[in-house]
Amino acid sequence: MDIALLGGTGDIGEGLALRWANDTSHTVIVGSRDADKAAAKAEEYEAELDGREVDVAGLANEDAAARADVVVTAVPAYHLTDTVEAVADELDDTILVSPAVGMKRDEDGFHYNRPGVGSVTQLAAEAAPDGTPVVGAFHNLAAGRLADPEADLDWDTIVVGDDRDAKATVSELAEGIEGLRALDGGPLANAAEVEGLTPLLINVARHNDGLHDLGVQFR
Amino acid sequence: MDIALLGGTGDIGEGLALRWANDTSHTVIVGSRDADKAAAKAEEYEAELDGREVDVAGLANEDAAARADVVVTAVPAYHLTDTVEAVADELDDTILVSPAVGMKRDEDGFHYNRPGVGSVTQLAAEAAPDGTPVVGAFHNLAAGRLADPEADLDWDTIVVGDDRDAKATVSELAEGIEGLRALDGGPLANAAEVEGLTPLLINVARHNDGLHDLGVQFR
Repeated sequence: MDIALLGGTGDIGEGLALRWANDTSHTVIVGSRDADKAAAKAEEYEAELDGREVDVAGLANEDAAARADVVVTAVPAYHLTDTVEAVADELDDTILVSPAVGMKRDEDGFHYNRPGVGSVTQLAAEAAPDGTPVVGAFHNLAAGRLADPEADLDWDTIVVGDDRDAKATVSELAEGIEGLRALDGGPLANAAEVEGLTPLLINVARHNDGLHDLGVQFR
Repeated sequence: MDIALLGGTGDIGEGLALRWANDTSHTVIVGSRDADKAAAKAEEYEAELDGREVDVAGLANEDAAARADVVVTAVPAYHLTDTVEAVADELDDTILVSPAVGMKRDEDGFHYNRPGVGSVTQLAAEAAPDGTPVVGAFHNLAAGRLADPEADLDWDTIVVGDDRDAKATVSELAEGIEGLRALDGGPLANAAEVEGLTPLLINVARHNDGLHDLGVQFR
């Protein structure tokens, strides 16, 4: 399958790119607003993967989306709507996956910053063309550990969405990553509770010695 | 230590009572608005603990609070303020622990119902007398598994609060329960992110075959 990572030069994009390239036979396309930057990052990822036969291309976001079966918007929440709208014409028969979480930080810790529409994942759905299935996933993965090929994950990721087939495809992509289990969180309207877990992970990591780059396992 | 479980006749109260009675040498006091009901439940718990030498007393909430070093308000969120106010005069040198979560349910699933004050745990703090340290803990424990003495937990519970000593005491109480690890979530103002995990646990349990009575492990 061809997976485009828009904002694939950022930290969560890097982690997903390296894991999919390393653990699966999918083609990873690194997208950026700047095609040169995308190409440079793709080369960097290939170098990190150290001679393994992988296929990591770097393209401008629009071209990356046009080539992909699945588009992951690995961008900060405040760039999400712009990013989706910029590639909207390229999303025929494409599944759009949103991992973004809105957070604010104050003197106490990190807090979930819930958008009026309900969740950041639902913001992606609002911006997507009619008929493009939108799935929320990969919200709760610590980017640092994800991007470290030596680190075991042993984490769950919750998949939410209203299109059953699209959810199944994304769950399969998730489980292609070694040590990642995909769990169904129900419809898109349940995304806020998934996104709200991310600031909790950060707060717990900040307050407990020896814990960092945290994910969760439901058990 | 003497632990009062106000609303100790409900499901989360039952689970905590049975675990503390079984796994530790603390004295558990089951509180209820109705002293007779509390006494009957305490007897029932002792019978369930099946001859083990335990100390589970049943008293009216006020009397339970008066005797306790730690008071856990194991009541639904909408009874929390009333329950705390009813025992306020008995809370000298007492730590107040709030495990309650506010949720609403719609056709999509369960959602966190965040009170205006920030979180349900902060509601408890508002209702508590000045000088009574309030700690949030035990928000994310599935009552059914907690109350089943045969079931392994292997869960984390996040402890939040502004009083360092009170948090340390509650963390120790938590870790007295076999299979429960206490993690520091930071100040009371971080409680909302902890409470918001509970509807997620329920949504995940509803949508995944073979998963039920879920908790989490941070890893």
